[in-house]
Amino acid sequence: MIIDCHGHYTTAPRSLEDWRNRQIAGLKDPAAAPKVSDLAISDDELRESIVTNQLQKMLERGSDLTIFSPRASFMAHHIGDFKVSSTWASICNELCYRVSTLFPDNFIGAAMLPQSPGVDPKTCIPELERCVEEYGFVGINLNPDPSGGHWREPPLSDRHWYPIYEKMVEHDIPAMIHVSTSCNACFHTTGAHYLNADTTAFMQCLTADLFRDFPTLKFVIPHGGGAAPYHWGRFRGLAQELKKPLLKDHLLNNIFFDTCVYHQPGIDLLTKVIPVDNILFASEMIGAVRGIDPETGHYFDDTKRYVAATPNLSDADRHKVFETNARRVYPRLDAALCARGL
Amino acid sequence: MIIDCHGHYTTAPRSLEDWRNRQIAGLKDPAAAPKVSDLAISDDELRESIVTNQLQKMLERGSDLTIFSPRASFMAHHIGDFKVSSTWASICNELCYRVSTLFPDNFIGAAMLPQSPGVDPKTCIPELERCVEEYGFVGINLNPDPSGGHWREPPLSDRHWYPIYEKMVEHDIPAMIHVSTSCNACFHTTGAHYLNADTTAFMQCLTADLFRDFPTLKFVIPHGGGAAPYHWGRFRGLAQELKKPLLKDHLLNNIFFDTCVYHQPGIDLLTKVIPVDNILFASEMIGAVRGIDPETGHYFDDTKRYVAATPNLSDADRHKVFETNARRVYPRLDAALCARGL
Repeated sequence: MIIDCHGHYTTAPRSLEDWRNRQIAGLKDPAAAPKVSDLAISDDELRESIVTNQLQKMLERGSDLTIFSPRASFMAHHIGDFKVSSTWASICNELCYRVSTLFPDNFIGAAMLPQSPGVDPKTCIPELERCVEEYGFVGINLNPDPSGGHWREPPLSDRHWYPIYEKMVEHDIPAMIHVSTSCNACFHTTGAHYLNADTTAFMQCLTADLFRDFPTLKFVIPHGGGAAPYHWGRFRGLAQELKKPLLKDHLLNNIFFDTCVYHQPGIDLLTKVIPVDNILFASEMIGAVRGIDPETGHYFDDTKRYVAATPNLSDADRHKVFETNARRVYPRLDAALCARGL
Repeated sequence: MIIDCHGHYTTAPRSLEDWRNRQIAGLKDPAAAPKVSDLAISDDELRESIVTNQLQKMLERGSDLTIFSPRASFMAHHIGDFKVSSTWASICNELCYRVSTLFPDNFIGAAMLPQSPGVDPKTCIPELERCVEEYGFVGINLNPDPSGGHWREPPLSDRHWYPIYEKMVEHDIPAMIHVSTSCNACFHTTGAHYLNADTTAFMQCLTADLFRDFPTLKFVIPHGGGAAPYHWGRFRGLAQELKKPLLKDHLLNNIFFDTCVYHQPGIDLLTKVIPVDNILFASEMIGAVRGIDPETGHYFDDTKRYVAATPNLSDADRHKVFETNARRVYPRLDAALCARGL
């Protein structure tokens, strides 16, 4: 079985975006604000949006199951207040849940949280618990910068975030550390802000002792860990200067990297430098980079090809990257698969 | 000849830091503000600080000439106003100049600029010109985020920066794009902010057409280009979606990467992915990562070893990385060497 741990519902029916635009318009003109019930998307529309997009690509490329969360760039936690984020998160999570019920063999949910700049993260707990308990979601996306590129919340190692971590540990779910749209003109969303956030999150963990307080907490750092694997020597050296343990002991029981790196040399480096137990297959397909690489004739985000081709992994290693690591990092996913005899 | 294009005066005599601390104290208490003439560092002190540090390591490792600029983390452009930055830059640049006159075979200067948040960059031009014309400096360090981690200036592609670019082109000097200390708690200075800035700068150039306005403008992106080479497929794909030319045509006539990547797999990736003509040898020795790598028994920042060992470069390629690329990117360096018959 091939599990893709990083998929977003980037292809939701257009009416979702229209509703969101009305919600945003309602911030200035309350008369324009839509009701939740104004959004009606049929099962057929959901099926169509998946069958012709993600599911088609999964069948073509040969992956089986995608951990599926709301579109990352649309989370836009910087817009409005907690109530706005809460309504929006609830709608987006429910759509991912419906996709997971329409295609139970191919999609399982991960939640976006109703984060809002400057608001206590514990306000996110009801939505988190609803998604886990009612929707069977197996993870969350945690945004370390709900300001959208201004970085005004404390680092992930700060007690500010502990209410979320306590619930993650209680429910045995990992968090993918994933920012959303940048509204800082310096940072292109998918070309700078996403990668910077990955590197930043890794370093926030490196300088702290968060995993001493939460030994079973698990973070998935997407996009191949940002700059971390490429600069692994730098990070090993910085940890040494900071008198931290070796990275494998300090961080690698708790931090995992996905394979959303869109060329062969990048995947070769990732699999050379990072222990195989810390690498989870992912493609973020139909995401940031949707085109075909003229150098290979294949989609940039068809990362399965790179993982299959790298000389750094044995067949047993590949089985870990494609399946068993995800089942270990997402225990609720494993339980759901086991319940189906898989 | 082996030219290291990225060295900072991290080992300046302690009295420099003391003076700076008094300058900072003077922001709140003008009576505590020091005069420039209060700082007196003798040639012997300068010699001592170099001979036992950078020069010793250069001799041990076998590099010949370092392009030497003031300590990056101490630039701290966010402190005080333009006048404060101006005085500080003037002092720091003069020290690098004095080092270059004491050790003319081994050091040649690059300038820090007296940038200040929200201040028009053209205010930096007198210091820039003084350093080039009086000190024989061959490049500048340009800080894309003088706020120190809050990213409040426009992107590097904005006309805001054009006065600097016009002078760079006029004097035929490149800029290393280099931030300074982060005063945003989210970003560790050398573990996150530096690498993020590299990635951000690269993407700012990718989304724009800056080099159409300045075809001969040259940027050196340090620390191996941040995350750019590791995610080269992502950047190629993003450029394609943005209808930009191929990266080699869009950016690689103007953007160069240094080799400050502190492990062999990172240098292997850099030299595999980036055309050899765009790679300049550098170590940033006695900088962010000063320790010995327990996996190799050698200094993390002894990057010459990685460049020497990588299977991706021929001897002719290595000659480019070690010498001729730097002479091409820094024409005033080449002229200075030619004038000495080198």
